[in-house]
Amino acid sequence: MDSQPPGLDAVQVLAFDMFGTVVDWHGSIVREMRDRHPQVDADAFALAWRAGYRPAMARVMSGELGWTRIDELHRLILDGILVRFGLASLDEAERRDLNRVWHRLDPWPDAADGLARLKRRYTICTLSNGNVGLLTNMAKRAGLPWDCILSAETFRAYKPAPAAYLGVAQTFDLAPGQVMLVAAHHDDLAGARACGLRTAYVERPLEFGASQPKDVSPQPGNDLHARDFLHLADLLGVG
Amino acid sequence: MDSQPPGLDAVQVLAFDMFGTVVDWHGSIVREMRDRHPQVDADAFALAWRAGYRPAMARVMSGELGWTRIDELHRLILDGILVRFGLASLDEAERRDLNRVWHRLDPWPDAADGLARLKRRYTICTLSNGNVGLLTNMAKRAGLPWDCILSAETFRAYKPAPAAYLGVAQTFDLAPGQVMLVAAHHDDLAGARACGLRTAYVERPLEFGASQPKDVSPQPGNDLHARDFLHLADLLGVG
Repeated sequence: MDSQPPGLDAVQVLAFDMFGTVVDWHGSIVREMRDRHPQVDADAFALAWRAGYRPAMARVMSGELGWTRIDELHRLILDGILVRFGLASLDEAERRDLNRVWHRLDPWPDAADGLARLKRRYTICTLSNGNVGLLTNMAKRAGLPWDCILSAETFRAYKPAPAAYLGVAQTFDLAPGQVMLVAAHHDDLAGARACGLRTAYVERPLEFGASQPKDVSPQPGNDLHARDFLHLADLLGVG
Repeated sequence: MDSQPPGLDAVQVLAFDMFGTVVDWHGSIVREMRDRHPQVDADAFALAWRAGYRPAMARVMSGELGWTRIDELHRLILDGILVRFGLASLDEAERRDLNRVWHRLDPWPDAADGLARLKRRYTICTLSNGNVGLLTNMAKRAGLPWDCILSAETFRAYKPAPAAYLGVAQTFDLAPGQVMLVAAHHDDLAGARACGLRTAYVERPLEFGASQPKDVSPQPGNDLHARDFLHLADLLGVG
């Protein structure tokens, strides 16, 4: 079976967004908070932590902050929300350990099997705003079989900065059209498309939890629209 | 079994030199040259190509050249030696393809199995002067199960620059003493040791071919001295 749409046969590298696309940040944080701090509204806590993510990266990309890794940005945001959730008494070691929950996120159920299939034909790499150490720890724990871990940290540029997307192509001496970004977020895919990459949208309707189902209807412009990574492998004709 | 020397139980990351340590650059280039250009002295060709490696990196680190990847440096050296070996007539496509032999190097026979064992306890990564694309292609072809590919390219510093060794520790938020460099070259290990990393020497007596056996006798200063990666796993107590 070799059924991918025209033009996609040039693709050699699949680069994956991580948070929400490969791993379930919301569910993982909710589970860990319910274990550790059952008095806290875990759903609201996870959403508040994640809500600080874009503004924090924007401070880096605007130059207000020098280059700062996601581990440090996650910690800044965490320190800012603990009072609101009645957790101001957490000491340094507890905060540091809680912050590492982002290294311990569980993959979506199809992720490892889907990646293993896709790896048979493609070079599969991360392209996440998460830092390299975080992504490595996450992959090792979750059994994600990356050929290579690339990150905003590698290119000193947070997505959707063009340097991140183009950095993948340059790393492998490829034209942008030989790289496909796989992501569950249309703005990320739009950033990649503007740089000439091919794009695959993956539905992750529960990214924000069951109480906030996401609109996963197709949008124009993406080369592929997949329910999950197994479906993506089907669409790309990788048996 | 848990027999490693005192202090080594703090080690969490093993970083591997590649050319000569994990892969057999000399034998691989000799085999490919004998197939493609049987009239050429393949042994002398491989040695001449490799001899240009350190001087080329020195031009980058001195600032004479801006940041230049090993792929490009290998090509500069190749273009410089082709006349001497009667290969000046190779066209651009042939030169480009021959230059990619460095992406196709074969691993030493123990490498993949030894790495798989070491990966059970440690985070295993590359720390090579080879660029990320080269290392990724090499790993995919040779079945090397890295957790993460780190390179001089990642840190914009060729070994033995301290930024390369310290970059590994910083990537994983570790102290230098929690990282061990594994290499078949004493100068590389000395560079790592000067930065506070632990070091393991691995014998690769045939690195330069059977006609130029290497002195692999132990030298003081290294934490471990291993015959190969399986022996290294034994020394570290990884069953």
